[in-house]
Amino acid sequence: MKNQMIFALAFLIAAHCGQASAQQFAKPEDAIKYRKNALFVMGQHFGRVGAMASGRVPMDAKVLADNAAIVETMSKLPWPAFVEGTDKGDTKAKPEIWKDAAKFKEASEKMQFEVVKLNVAAKSGKVDDIKTAAGAVGAACKACHDQFRQ
Amino acid sequence: MKNQMIFALAFLIAAHCGQASAQQFAKPEDAIKYRKNALFVMGQHFGRVGAMASGRVPMDAKVLADNAAIVETMSKLPWPAFVEGTDKGDTKAKPEIWKDAAKFKEASEKMQFEVVKLNVAAKSGKVDDIKTAAGAVGAACKACHDQFRQ
Repeated sequence: MKNQMIFALAFLIAAHCGQASAQQFAKPEDAIKYRKNALFVMGQHFGRVGAMASGRVPMDAKVLADNAAIVETMSKLPWPAFVEGTDKGDTKAKPEIWKDAAKFKEASEKMQFEVVKLNVAAKSGKVDDIKTAAGAVGAACKACHDQFRQ
Repeated sequence: MKNQMIFALAFLIAAHCGQASAQQFAKPEDAIKYRKNALFVMGQHFGRVGAMASGRVPMDAKVLADNAAIVETMSKLPWPAFVEGTDKGDTKAKPEIWKDAAKFKEASEKMQFEVVKLNVAAKSGKVDDIKTAAGAVGAACKACHDQFRQ
Protein backbone atom coordinates (compact mmCIF):
# COMPACT_ATOMS: atom_id res chain seq x y z
CA MET A 1 0.00 0.00 0.00
CA LYS A 2 2.81 2.36 0.94
CA ASN A 3 4.69 1.37 -2.21
CA GLN A 4 1.60 1.99 -4.30
CA MET A 5 1.31 5.48 -2.85
CA ILE A 6 4.97 6.19 -3.60
CA PHE A 7 4.46 5.04 -7.18
CA ALA A 8 1.33 7.11 -7.53
CA LEU A 9 3.14 10.18 -6.21
CA ALA A 10 6.17 9.58 -8.41
CA PHE A 11 3.86 9.21 -11.36
CA LEU A 12 2.02 12.43 -10.65
CA ILE A 13 5.33 14.29 -10.44
CA ALA A 14 6.50 12.68 -13.66
CA ALA A 15 3.26 13.48 -15.47
CA HIS A 16 3.48 17.07 -14.26
CA CYS A 17 7.02 17.45 -15.55
CA GLY A 18 5.88 16.19 -18.93
CA GLN A 19 3.09 18.75 -18.92
CA ALA A 20 5.41 21.53 -17.89
CA SER A 21 7.65 20.88 -20.85
CA ALA A 22 4.71 20.92 -23.26
CA GLN A 23 5.74 22.93 -26.22
CA GLN A 24 4.50 24.52 -29.35
CA PHE A 25 5.81 23.15 -32.61
CA ALA A 26 6.64 25.39 -35.55
CA LYS A 27 4.72 23.10 -37.92
CA PRO A 28 2.73 19.82 -37.77
CA GLU A 29 5.65 17.92 -39.36
CA ASP A 30 7.87 18.99 -36.46
CA ALA A 31 5.40 17.55 -33.94
CA ILE A 32 5.31 14.25 -35.86
CA LYS A 33 9.10 14.15 -36.18
CA TYR A 34 9.58 15.06 -32.52
CA ARG A 35 7.36 12.30 -31.12
CA LYS A 36 8.82 9.69 -33.48
CA ASN A 37 12.35 10.76 -32.60
CA ALA A 38 11.68 10.74 -28.85
CA LEU A 39 10.04 7.31 -29.05
CA PHE A 40 12.93 5.92 -31.12
CA VAL A 41 15.52 7.15 -28.62
CA MET A 42 13.41 5.70 -25.79
CA GLY A 43 13.13 2.41 -27.66
CA GLN A 44 16.88 2.15 -28.11
CA HIS A 45 17.50 2.60 -24.39
CA PHE A 46 14.67 0.31 -23.38
CA GLY A 47 16.14 -2.24 -25.80
CA ARG A 48 19.35 -2.17 -23.76
CA VAL A 49 17.37 -2.70 -20.54
CA GLY A 50 15.38 -5.51 -22.14
CA ALA A 51 18.52 -7.22 -23.44
CA MET A 52 19.89 -7.41 -19.89
CA ALA A 53 16.55 -8.27 -18.27
CA SER A 54 16.10 -11.16 -20.68
CA GLY A 55 19.68 -12.37 -20.26
CA ARG A 56 20.67 -11.79 -23.90
CA VAL A 57 23.36 -9.40 -22.65
CA PRO A 58 25.23 -9.82 -19.33
CA MET A 59 23.63 -7.84 -16.50
CA ASP A 60 25.44 -4.65 -15.53
CA ALA A 61 23.36 -2.98 -12.84
CA LYS A 62 24.87 0.48 -13.38
CA VAL A 63 24.41 0.45 -17.16
CA LEU A 64 20.89 -0.90 -16.77
CA ALA A 65 19.96 1.80 -14.25
CA ASP A 66 21.47 4.54 -16.46
CA ASN A 67 19.47 3.32 -19.42
CA ALA A 68 16.27 3.00 -17.36
CA ALA A 69 16.73 6.61 -16.21
CA ILE A 70 16.97 7.78 -19.83
CA VAL A 71 13.85 5.74 -20.65
CA GLU A 72 12.04 7.57 -17.83
CA THR A 73 13.02 11.00 -19.13
CA MET A 74 12.08 10.05 -22.69
CA SER A 75 8.78 8.47 -21.64
CA LYS A 76 7.43 11.88 -20.64
CA LEU A 77 8.23 13.65 -23.89
CA PRO A 78 6.14 12.37 -26.81
CA TRP A 79 2.61 13.15 -25.61
CA PRO A 80 2.29 16.91 -26.11
CA ALA A 81 3.41 16.27 -29.71
CA PHE A 82 0.23 14.34 -30.51
CA VAL A 83 -1.24 17.63 -31.61
CA GLU A 84 -4.77 17.62 -33.07
CA GLY A 85 -4.59 17.23 -36.83
CA THR A 86 -1.25 15.39 -36.92
CA ASP A 87 -2.75 12.05 -37.93
CA LYS A 88 -1.75 12.87 -41.52
CA GLY A 89 1.73 12.88 -43.02
CA ASP A 90 4.72 10.70 -42.19
CA THR A 91 3.10 8.98 -39.24
CA LYS A 92 1.58 5.65 -38.22
CA ALA A 93 -0.62 7.34 -35.61
CA LYS A 94 -4.20 6.06 -35.83
CA PRO A 95 -7.12 8.55 -35.76
CA GLU A 96 -8.23 6.73 -32.57
CA ILE A 97 -5.60 8.74 -30.69
CA TRP A 98 -7.77 11.82 -31.07
CA LYS A 99 -11.17 10.08 -31.33
CA ASP A 100 -10.60 8.27 -28.06
CA ALA A 101 -8.21 10.70 -26.38
CA ALA A 102 -9.00 9.52 -22.84
CA LYS A 103 -8.10 5.94 -23.72
CA PHE A 104 -4.87 7.06 -25.42
CA LYS A 105 -3.95 9.15 -22.38
CA GLU A 106 -4.62 6.15 -20.15
CA ALA A 107 -2.41 3.92 -22.32
CA SER A 108 0.42 6.46 -22.39
CA GLU A 109 0.18 6.97 -18.63
CA LYS A 110 0.19 3.21 -18.04
CA MET A 111 3.53 3.03 -19.86
CA GLN A 112 4.99 5.97 -17.92
CA PHE A 113 3.81 4.41 -14.66
CA GLU A 114 5.45 1.08 -15.48
CA VAL A 115 8.66 2.95 -16.38
CA VAL A 116 8.65 4.63 -12.96
CA LYS A 117 8.36 1.17 -11.41
CA LEU A 118 11.17 -0.10 -13.66
CA ASN A 119 13.40 2.66 -12.31
CA VAL A 120 12.57 1.72 -8.72
CA ALA A 121 13.50 -1.88 -9.55
CA ALA A 122 16.64 -0.81 -11.42
CA LYS A 123 17.80 1.22 -8.43
CA SER A 124 17.16 -1.72 -6.10
CA GLY A 125 19.34 -3.94 -8.29
CA LYS A 126 17.01 -6.90 -7.64
CA VAL A 127 17.15 -8.93 -10.83
CA ASP A 128 13.74 -10.58 -10.43
CA ASP A 129 12.06 -7.21 -9.83
CA ILE A 130 13.85 -5.77 -12.86
CA LYS A 131 12.65 -8.65 -15.05
CA THR A 132 9.05 -8.25 -13.90
CA ALA A 133 9.13 -4.47 -14.31
CA ALA A 134 10.78 -4.62 -17.74
CA GLY A 135 8.15 -7.12 -18.85
CA ALA A 136 5.39 -4.78 -17.70
CA VAL A 137 6.93 -1.85 -19.61
CA GLY A 138 7.19 -3.98 -22.75
CA ALA A 139 3.56 -5.04 -22.37
CA ALA A 140 2.45 -1.42 -21.92
CA CYS A 141 4.36 -0.37 -25.08
CA LYS A 142 2.78 -3.21 -27.04
CA ALA A 143 -0.75 -2.54 -25.77
CA CYS A 144 -0.54 1.10 -26.88
CA HIS A 145 0.98 0.21 -30.25
CA ASP A 146 -1.69 -2.45 -30.88
CA GLN A 147 -4.47 0.03 -30.23
CA PHE A 148 -3.07 3.27 -31.57
CA ARG A 149 -0.36 2.56 -34.13
CA GLN A 150 -0.91 1.32 -37.67
CA MET B 1 37.05 30.13 -9.08
CA LYS B 2 34.68 28.20 -6.85
CA ASN B 3 32.01 28.39 -9.54
CA GLN B 4 34.47 27.16 -12.14
CA MET B 5 35.24 24.14 -9.98
CA ILE B 6 31.54 23.39 -9.55
CA PHE B 7 31.06 23.58 -13.30
CA ALA B 8 34.07 21.36 -13.92
CA LEU B 9 32.77 18.79 -11.44
CA ALA B 10 29.24 18.91 -12.84
CA PHE B 11 30.67 18.45 -16.28
CA LEU B 12 32.75 15.45 -15.31
CA ILE B 13 29.69 13.81 -13.76
CA ALA B 14 27.64 14.59 -16.86
CA ALA B 15 30.32 13.24 -19.18
CA HIS B 16 30.56 10.08 -17.10
CA CYS B 17 26.80 9.52 -17.27
CA GLY B 18 26.96 9.84 -21.03
CA GLN B 19 29.73 7.26 -21.12
CA ALA B 20 27.85 4.87 -18.90
CA SER B 21 24.89 4.87 -21.20
CA ALA B 22 27.05 4.09 -24.22
CA GLN B 23 25.28 1.46 -26.20
CA GLN B 24 25.69 -0.92 -29.05
CA PHE B 25 23.51 -0.39 -32.09
CA ALA B 26 21.98 -3.26 -34.02
CA LYS B 27 23.09 -1.71 -37.31
CA PRO B 28 24.92 1.43 -38.54
CA GLU B 29 21.60 2.97 -39.71
CA ASP B 30 20.30 2.75 -36.12
CA ALA B 31 23.31 4.67 -34.83
CA ILE B 32 22.77 7.39 -37.46
CA LYS B 33 19.03 7.55 -36.74
CA TYR B 34 19.60 7.60 -32.99
CA ARG B 35 22.03 10.52 -32.99
CA LYS B 36 19.89 12.52 -35.43
CA ASN B 37 16.78 11.84 -33.36
CA ALA B 38 18.44 12.76 -30.07
CA LEU B 39 19.84 15.97 -31.57
CA PHE B 40 16.45 16.91 -33.04
CA VAL B 41 14.68 16.43 -29.69
CA MET B 42 17.43 18.47 -28.01
CA GLY B 43 17.08 21.17 -30.64
CA GLN B 44 13.34 21.45 -30.10
CA HIS B 45 13.78 21.96 -26.36
CA PHE B 46 16.70 24.33 -26.79
CA GLY B 47 14.54 26.24 -29.25
CA ARG B 48 12.02 26.81 -26.45
CA VAL B 49 14.79 28.05 -24.15
CA GLY B 50 16.16 30.29 -26.88
CA ALA B 51 12.72 31.73 -27.65
CA MET B 52 12.38 32.85 -24.02
CA ALA B 53 16.00 33.97 -23.65
CA SER B 54 15.68 36.15 -26.74
CA GLY B 55 12.32 37.55 -25.66
CA ARG B 56 10.38 36.11 -28.63
CA VAL B 57 8.23 34.21 -26.12
CA PRO B 58 7.31 35.51 -22.63
CA MET B 59 9.70 34.25 -19.95
CA ASP B 60 8.34 31.46 -17.75
CA ALA B 61 11.16 30.45 -15.39
CA LYS B 62 9.67 27.02 -14.62
CA VAL B 63 9.05 26.09 -18.27
CA LEU B 64 12.51 27.38 -19.21
CA ALA B 65 14.19 25.34 -16.45
CA ASP B 66 12.22 22.20 -17.41
CA ASN B 67 13.29 22.58 -21.02
CA ALA B 68 16.91 23.28 -20.07
CA ALA B 69 16.92 20.08 -17.98
CA ILE B 70 15.73 18.06 -20.98
CA VAL B 71 18.43 19.72 -23.11
CA GLU B 72 21.01 18.60 -20.54
CA THR B 73 19.83 14.98 -20.62
CA MET B 74 19.72 14.98 -24.41
CA SER B 75 23.13 16.67 -24.74
CA LYS B 76 24.83 13.56 -23.34
CA LEU B 77 23.23 11.05 -25.69
CA PRO B 78 24.38 11.50 -29.31
CA TRP B 79 28.12 10.93 -28.96
CA PRO B 80 28.44 7.15 -28.58
CA ALA B 81 26.36 6.91 -31.77
CA PHE B 82 29.13 8.46 -33.86
CA VAL B 83 30.37 4.95 -34.48
CA GLU B 84 33.33 4.47 -36.79
CA GLY B 85 32.11 3.92 -40.36
CA THR B 86 28.83 5.79 -39.96
CA ASP B 87 29.87 8.71 -42.16
CA LYS B 88 27.96 7.06 -45.02
CA GLY B 89 24.20 6.80 -45.45
CA ASP B 90 21.47 9.24 -44.39
CA THR B 91 23.79 11.58 -42.52
CA LYS B 92 25.41 14.99 -42.82
CA ALA B 93 28.28 13.94 -40.59
CA LYS B 94 31.62 14.98 -42.09
CA PRO B 95 34.53 12.50 -42.21
CA GLU B 96 36.43 15.02 -40.03
CA ILE B 97 34.47 13.63 -37.04
CA TRP B 98 36.55 10.48 -37.22
CA LYS B 99 39.67 11.96 -38.83
CA ASP B 100 39.99 14.55 -36.09
CA ALA B 101 38.22 12.70 -33.26
CA ALA B 102 39.92 14.70 -30.49
CA LYS B 103 38.69 17.98 -31.97
CA PHE B 104 35.16 16.60 -32.37
CA LYS B 105 35.19 15.36 -28.77
CA GLU B 106 36.34 18.79 -27.64
CA ALA B 107 33.53 20.49 -29.59
CA SER B 108 30.88 18.11 -28.24
CA GLU B 109 32.16 18.56 -24.69
CA LYS B 110 32.18 22.32 -25.09
CA MET B 111 28.45 22.18 -25.90
CA GLN B 112 27.70 19.87 -22.95
CA PHE B 113 29.68 22.15 -20.65
CA GLU B 114 27.76 25.23 -21.79
CA VAL B 115 24.49 23.31 -21.28
CA VAL B 116 25.49 22.54 -17.68
CA LYS B 117 26.09 26.27 -17.19
CA LEU B 118 22.72 27.03 -18.81
CA ASN B 119 21.05 24.77 -16.25
CA VAL B 120 22.80 26.54 -13.39
CA ALA B 121 21.56 29.86 -14.79
CA ALA B 122 18.05 28.47 -15.40
CA LYS B 123 17.84 27.28 -11.78
CA SER B 124 19.00 30.68 -10.54
CA GLY B 125 16.22 32.35 -12.53
CA LYS B 126 18.53 35.31 -13.30
CA VAL B 127 17.46 36.48 -16.74
CA ASP B 128 20.78 38.06 -17.72
CA ASP B 129 22.68 34.89 -16.78
CA ILE B 130 20.18 32.80 -18.74
CA LYS B 131 20.62 35.00 -21.84
CA THR B 132 24.41 34.77 -21.65
CA ALA B 133 24.35 31.03 -21.08
CA ALA B 134 21.82 30.37 -23.85
CA GLY B 135 23.94 32.42 -26.23
CA ALA B 136 27.00 30.34 -25.33
CA VAL B 137 25.11 27.10 -25.95
CA GLY B 138 23.91 28.37 -29.32
CA ALA B 139 27.47 29.38 -30.23
CA ALA B 140 28.79 25.93 -29.22
CA CYS B 141 26.11 24.19 -31.36
CA LYS B 142 27.01 26.39 -34.33
CA ALA B 143 30.77 25.95 -33.95
CA CYS B 144 30.40 22.15 -34.01
CA HIS B 145 27.98 22.22 -36.96
CA ASP B 146 30.26 24.54 -38.93
CA GLN B 147 33.21 22.22 -38.48
CA PHE B 148 31.61 18.78 -38.53
CA ARG B 149 28.26 18.92 -40.34
CA GLN B 150 27.79 19.21 -44.12
